[in-house]
Amino acid sequence: MATSDSTVPAPPPLSFERHPSTYQHWKLTFDGPIATLGMDVQEDAGLSPGYKLKLNSYDLGVDIELADAINRIRFEHPEVRTVVVTSLRERIFCAGANIFMLRGATHSWKVNFCKFTNETRLGMEDASRYSGIKFLAALNGICAGGGYELALACDEIILIDDANSAVSLPETPLLAVLPGTGGLTRVVDKRKVRRDLADFFGTIAEGVKGKRAVEWRLVDAVVPASRFKETVAKRAAELAATSDRPATGPGITLNPLNATITDEGYTYSSVSVTFDRAKRAATMTVRGPMAPVEATPDAILAAGDQFWPLRVFREIDDAILRLRVNERELGTIVLKSEGDPALVLEADQILLDHAAHWLVREVIHFIKRTLKRLDLSARSFFAVIEPGNAFAGTLFELVLAADRSYMLDDPDQPNTIQLSGMNAVLCMSNGLSRLDARFYGTPNQVAEVLDHDGPSDASEALEAGLVTFAPDEIDWDDEVRMAVEGRASMSPDALTGMEANLRFVGPETMETKIFGRLTAWQNWIFQRPNAVGPKGALTSYGTSDRAEFDFGRT
Amino acid sequence: MATSDSTVPAPPPLSFERHPSTYQHWKLTFDGPIATLGMDVQEDAGLSPGYKLKLNSYDLGVDIELADAINRIRFEHPEVRTVVVTSLRERIFCAGANIFMLRGATHSWKVNFCKFTNETRLGMEDASRYSGIKFLAALNGICAGGGYELALACDEIILIDDANSAVSLPETPLLAVLPGTGGLTRVVDKRKVRRDLADFFGTIAEGVKGKRAVEWRLVDAVVPASRFKETVAKRAAELAATSDRPATGPGITLNPLNATITDEGYTYSSVSVTFDRAKRAATMTVRGPMAPVEATPDAILAAGDQFWPLRVFREIDDAILRLRVNERELGTIVLKSEGDPALVLEADQILLDHAAHWLVREVIHFIKRTLKRLDLSARSFFAVIEPGNAFAGTLFELVLAADRSYMLDDPDQPNTIQLSGMNAVLCMSNGLSRLDARFYGTPNQVAEVLDHDGPSDASEALEAGLVTFAPDEIDWDDEVRMAVEGRASMSPDALTGMEANLRFVGPETMETKIFGRLTAWQNWIFQRPNAVGPKGALTSYGTSDRAEFDFGRT
Repeated sequence: MATSDSTVPAPPPLSFERHPSTYQHWKLTFDGPIATLGMDVQEDAGLSPGYKLKLNSYDLGVDIELADAINRIRFEHPEVRTVVVTSLRERIFCAGANIFMLRGATHSWKVNFCKFTNETRLGMEDASRYSGIKFLAALNGICAGGGYELALACDEIILIDDANSAVSLPETPLLAVLPGTGGLTRVVDKRKVRRDLADFFGTIAEGVKGKRAVEWRLVDAVVPASRFKETVAKRAAELAATSDRPATGPGITLNPLNATITDEGYTYSSVSVTFDRAKRAATMTVRGPMAPVEATPDAILAAGDQFWPLRVFREIDDAILRLRVNERELGTIVLKSEGDPALVLEADQILLDHAAHWLVREVIHFIKRTLKRLDLSARSFFAVIEPGNAFAGTLFELVLAADRSYMLDDPDQPNTIQLSGMNAVLCMSNGLSRLDARFYGTPNQVAEVLDHDGPSDASEALEAGLVTFAPDEIDWDDEVRMAVEGRASMSPDALTGMEANLRFVGPETMETKIFGRLTAWQNWIFQRPNAVGPKGALTSYGTSDRAEFDFGRT
Repeated sequence: MATSDSTVPAPPPLSFERHPSTYQHWKLTFDGPIATLGMDVQEDAGLSPGYKLKLNSYDLGVDIELADAINRIRFEHPEVRTVVVTSLRERIFCAGANIFMLRGATHSWKVNFCKFTNETRLGMEDASRYSGIKFLAALNGICAGGGYELALACDEIILIDDANSAVSLPETPLLAVLPGTGGLTRVVDKRKVRRDLADFFGTIAEGVKGKRAVEWRLVDAVVPASRFKETVAKRAAELAATSDRPATGPGITLNPLNATITDEGYTYSSVSVTFDRAKRAATMTVRGPMAPVEATPDAILAAGDQFWPLRVFREIDDAILRLRVNERELGTIVLKSEGDPALVLEADQILLDHAAHWLVREVIHFIKRTLKRLDLSARSFFAVIEPGNAFAGTLFELVLAADRSYMLDDPDQPNTIQLSGMNAVLCMSNGLSRLDARFYGTPNQVAEVLDHDGPSDASEALEAGLVTFAPDEIDWDDEVRMAVEGRASMSPDALTGMEANLRFVGPETMETKIFGRLTAWQNWIFQRPNAVGPKGALTSYGTSDRAEFDFGRT
């Protein structure tokens, strides 16, 4: 079917792996407990040709480097307690997402771009909340749109006080879209800017500067140029003093994943993904540890990125990101596992025993964030639980994250699953564990399944509500096949909307508001002629044409 | 600008006033504390030609009658404690929203249709929670899509147990859209159906019946035909026994509003709306009471629908509904008031003093619901506060609900506003009072402004954060004019998205999830070619064409 998406040539397969030695847009420097992320976007180094990344504007490539840098600070630099986010350019902090990139992008590219940048910014807040890494936005120049949204993700914002530098969200007046990377939500929900002031702010392209920016809570301080560097350094040190991170390293090194990426699938050390393009499905198989994992903090440090819980979730994370952007037609992901569940449970116990150690803490939160990425992926996930599976504890989270699960019930082939304490620890974006979300109506069931000792076979798992269906060996093949084929026959858009509503039962947080309310509205606007039609504002921006609107309100 | 919306002739101006004597689709009957709403949709009595309302399927006209009936039960029948919602047809309860109506509808009509039906269903839950009116869905036949969503809005659901009758949400598999009238949200959040079971349920067109429907919590009971009526009657009586409504009437009569509706505006007894089509704006002026309002329950009962607080908010409600559907290009609503604020504050005190009386309770909740409708309207609201205004207490909620407010600060012209205890009582969809939402970051300010004795002039109101801007007489005209003109120049879609995000700071409830997460996704899907394109599922349904999908996931 012809849509605007299919008329644009697909970009080449995108990799999400980066290394500071080859960053093009950021300079990451360290000074004891203070790291500085200096933005210096190379105009001609966009991911695609056709636009120039002027004025520190960004595309997905810039953000992939940012995400890499933050992740490396967490794992490779345990001594870092404050990250100063600033610009290496004069008079400009960041002009936000590149408009010409957005204009040329397909709908799905826009959606995935916003999703990833949202995850990166929420990852900064996650590091602040759980890892003792505070972020200080040092706005040494104009800070517009996505640039201000990046600042909003920081713990504090200091704006230079000159005649020029303002913070702004000009998306609505200039482009007829939303500040969609959390901006609207964070302004009122995080920084608690009064809604009527936020309304005014969100409609003026020039933004707000100076004293008014502080009074309206848009920034925490404005400082003259003469005292800017000194004030930033002082505040960075004060923030660092509040951290519980270790005083010194060493950290571990995040080495390349060295995956084999082909047109048939992805192969990692503990994860493999095989495509079935005819069925528009992929099977992701996760392997448990081959031997007991390292059991002490020192041994875990020595193992570094080869520590199985970290290794396997880095691989899952990379696979999800690649699938999202590079394999849009593979709509259903079948989740399988294999290995020794006892070794997974041992690993879980080690994580729980040493959760206070900085590295183990990082591993746990990395696992949590990877699983959140899965929850937020616009793909259907079906867990298929077969004999030889390793769906225990942390790996069972994959089953709980899935939209449905199928477990073979065959008395001739032992097939079990098992929970661990980790299933109470790993929270979704809404703040609930996946067990709490699953048994939202019957919280006593959460305690029951966590109290259950030992493995559960298919009929026990079904009875306990831990799996959706448990077909016997006669029905198994047909039922799983029909589920996957049935899913593939439905509209991907309707499935995405349905899944986004059913996955997040119960409370909402700022995080779920960003992905639910804000993103859903933004995606709607990204389809509206007033933004993306031939005379829409995003289409007309920077041309000699003036946008023409259909002024009918919905 | 040419869009799909502008190619369809506008429907005639729609009225939202109805009376049971002329209902076409519902039969409302009374038996002591039990009212029965029997659905019997007249196939040929749709709001527009071009579709037949077969199988008790509905369009907006059917839902306007339903909303009217529920409102009349609240005000005219205080003795009613249980409402049985059922069908007067054999073997069919309700087939949901009419698909051929949806197919032929413009995007904005779909959006407004869903919004109104959502408000109606949430109004049922409001009546249950606050007014002691319980709703019992007696599903005497097939219950599909919006039919099941209507049942979900009831307190309990009884399904007939025959070979035929099932509950279903076939929107995703059949039409490539969502069950968008709260269905997905209520299944998991209200009825607490497990998310994987809900996922399965939401993908099978045939639905679920019998014992499984109970086990999965989709219904509360299934009952054979032989015992159906008796069981419904028994359960209706049990629900009625829990109510705190009065044992007998009389209620009051909701008479026609007798508004003058012209192409220049609307004139009611206490509300007038004037259009400025060139500015794409309307001014709504609300007048305070002309004399002290009735002060005792008996006097209020005698005054009936002429009791000023009820009268003025019935008029505001009607005006908002008309503007939404009939005046799509009037994007900005300027809110003004006039009258004696002392009389408004007196009325507020009477409402608070007698809040436990059934009729006063109904009036307060009606005011609350009307203000929620304003919050949920896709229009910009600017409050303009001038000398002679009556923005006190309950009427000041209009200022708090506005996206911004402008208050003239002219020492030569006294101009004040004032709060009352009602400003702590009237909650938004998110459960916060508008003051709590306004001062989300500084809750102590809520107590401060409520404690403030007497009126506040413009500079005091500005200082207290109760108004956005307070221009002096030199700037006033220009500043207000430029605000209205500036708003009119922006994309209505971006404004709608921005407002929907800024208005609902803080916590989310099932109600805000329905309007935020669910509706925003549904509106996105209502724009997607897979649903509404030439080969989309909604377009192809019921024709010889098969839907063809772009299978790319976003």
